[in-house]
Amino acid sequence: MRGNACVTVGWDIGGVSTKAARLVYHQRRIKTLQTADQYFEIWKGKERLPSVLRTLSKALGPADAMAVTMTAELSDVFPTKTHGVRYVVRCVRKAFPDLPIYGLDVDGGFLDLRRPLKDPLSLAATNWLATAMLLARSRPNCLLVDIGSTTTDIIPILEGRIVARGRSDTDRLLAGELIYTGVLRTPVSAITAVLPLGHARCPVASEYFAISADVYRILGRLEPHDYSCSTPDGRGKSQAAARRRLVRMVCADAKDFSEREVIGMARFVHETQRAQIVEAMRRVVRWHRRRTLPVIATGLGSFLARDCARTLGWPVENIAVSLGRGASHHTPPVGAAYLLAEWLTER
Amino acid sequence: MRGNACVTVGWDIGGVSTKAARLVYHQRRIKTLQTADQYFEIWKGKERLPSVLRTLSKALGPADAMAVTMTAELSDVFPTKTHGVRYVVRCVRKAFPDLPIYGLDVDGGFLDLRRPLKDPLSLAATNWLATAMLLARSRPNCLLVDIGSTTTDIIPILEGRIVARGRSDTDRLLAGELIYTGVLRTPVSAITAVLPLGHARCPVASEYFAISADVYRILGRLEPHDYSCSTPDGRGKSQAAARRRLVRMVCADAKDFSEREVIGMARFVHETQRAQIVEAMRRVVRWHRRRTLPVIATGLGSFLARDCARTLGWPVENIAVSLGRGASHHTPPVGAAYLLAEWLTER
Repeated sequence: MRGNACVTVGWDIGGVSTKAARLVYHQRRIKTLQTADQYFEIWKGKERLPSVLRTLSKALGPADAMAVTMTAELSDVFPTKTHGVRYVVRCVRKAFPDLPIYGLDVDGGFLDLRRPLKDPLSLAATNWLATAMLLARSRPNCLLVDIGSTTTDIIPILEGRIVARGRSDTDRLLAGELIYTGVLRTPVSAITAVLPLGHARCPVASEYFAISADVYRILGRLEPHDYSCSTPDGRGKSQAAARRRLVRMVCADAKDFSEREVIGMARFVHETQRAQIVEAMRRVVRWHRRRTLPVIATGLGSFLARDCARTLGWPVENIAVSLGRGASHHTPPVGAAYLLAEWLTER
Repeated sequence: MRGNACVTVGWDIGGVSTKAARLVYHQRRIKTLQTADQYFEIWKGKERLPSVLRTLSKALGPADAMAVTMTAELSDVFPTKTHGVRYVVRCVRKAFPDLPIYGLDVDGGFLDLRRPLKDPLSLAATNWLATAMLLARSRPNCLLVDIGSTTTDIIPILEGRIVARGRSDTDRLLAGELIYTGVLRTPVSAITAVLPLGHARCPVASEYFAISADVYRILGRLEPHDYSCSTPDGRGKSQAAARRRLVRMVCADAKDFSEREVIGMARFVHETQRAQIVEAMRRVVRWHRRRTLPVIATGLGSFLARDCARTLGWPVENIAVSLGRGASHHTPPVGAAYLLAEWLTER
């Protein structure tokens, strides 16, 4: 903290991937921004978390202070969410014993993580808040639609205030502000109960045969390097491999259908997922007695968020326009780092 | 084969469990019947299949011949179902090199597995056929409802003939004769998109947090030893542990709800699953221009099949009444063993 300058690292510690952003902050602006992430399924070895954190931190460089958001506490590797939050906080302190570290809480404040935690749940699932608070600085009236690997956040911002009804995951599910659907790891059977076969609709197998990443690979909306999770069958990420997985949802082999038919199935899943998100966007905006809001599309699935906005006929903008390219897939850690820098230099 | 007597072993080689039945057959009747099974997830180490087969066979005792049905070929450990069938057949031959072994085909005939396979797919997913053919011997007019760990078979039998419209899994899904829902491993998110919270309906997380076995443990319909698959979180099979898993579907911890509320959630999932099966039962029977058929309830989920019959007001009978207690959870291997014994002694 040198006057109004500082270097902060923000974290988004999730159940399947951990993301970090490093900001050089100077005179209320981002001077430089770097991001890094690592695919790390916490239930496959939670004791490796400190080393994952250290690796990412090393890749980014030194910092004056760190800000933590997380969603990993929901993983069932922890008996309760409270256990989860405590574990993640312990790991962060272990990885960076000499740094000031803060956790973003559900009210948008920072807690000093070197002090004993009074209410661990106030640190649960605040990554969406980091994004929304950052966005509210530049876009006082908008609808944030952040589509990630398994979840979609739909956050209304009015007159510079985050007016989301829910703060906890459960309340956000109830409000339609959190939808458990995303563009990578969502099982196809959680998006649709049927797939089109000719003029019929065939019920799908409720097996972990294909995921949304397969659908968007088939449709050419994701490149192989975007498919950053494991494939359900452990095979490749080519379009042909994705088609093989999708047809297994109706207990079939790829040779049973033409390529065009399989693309038709993928399109059907995409349209079903889009309709679900569109409906939630309508509901969230209506609740605030608005008919429309400009949509800020972000996350790995920003392409889908843009599709949804177009379906609704609402204006749409990519968050990258406001924050620069690197930020758009890493908005929660960028948000956390920015908010911390602001807080440290202005308090 | 001593005149009209023989000893046969029938197999049902599935993706998560392998079941066997040994029959001493004499003068067109079952003299003694033993069954055995092993929980074996084939995608976790398919090379262990021959040893699983040998272990189960040793537990049952020697046989004159064996009959194979399977569903394991659908597992995505195999690139195609054809590969899957060939692999399973190779394993059976490897495990029992000196025995006559036959595969039940989709037309209800037996193929000698010591000869080269011309059409491997004709051996895919025939376990339901073994059950239905066996049942048709004693119940010429009925609806077989076999509810297992992940699937439900609804098979109409009229005038002693199996009048199912589908033979392949895909065609059976289309006809409503195969439903991908069961009482153990079906993810709760594949049964229902919402859970009741007070007067509201909360969308569920599409994560592998809780399965149907948790629902039926909570409702006291399954005992811990019936919960024969792994738990989603690797923890225990008590009702308390099952409740913890179910509430995680709405991103909550057990302490957030009363026990009564969680039982209400479980009941809701049960009713949703029952409604799905009831609808398919109606549809299958209607297609044959009947209003009702006596229901034969079998499988690990025969309790649910009986619930469904009661909901419809149709007469219901447990298959155990016809075949004896041991048979009811192992009808496909019992059917395969019986049909083979009949075929060997009468041809």
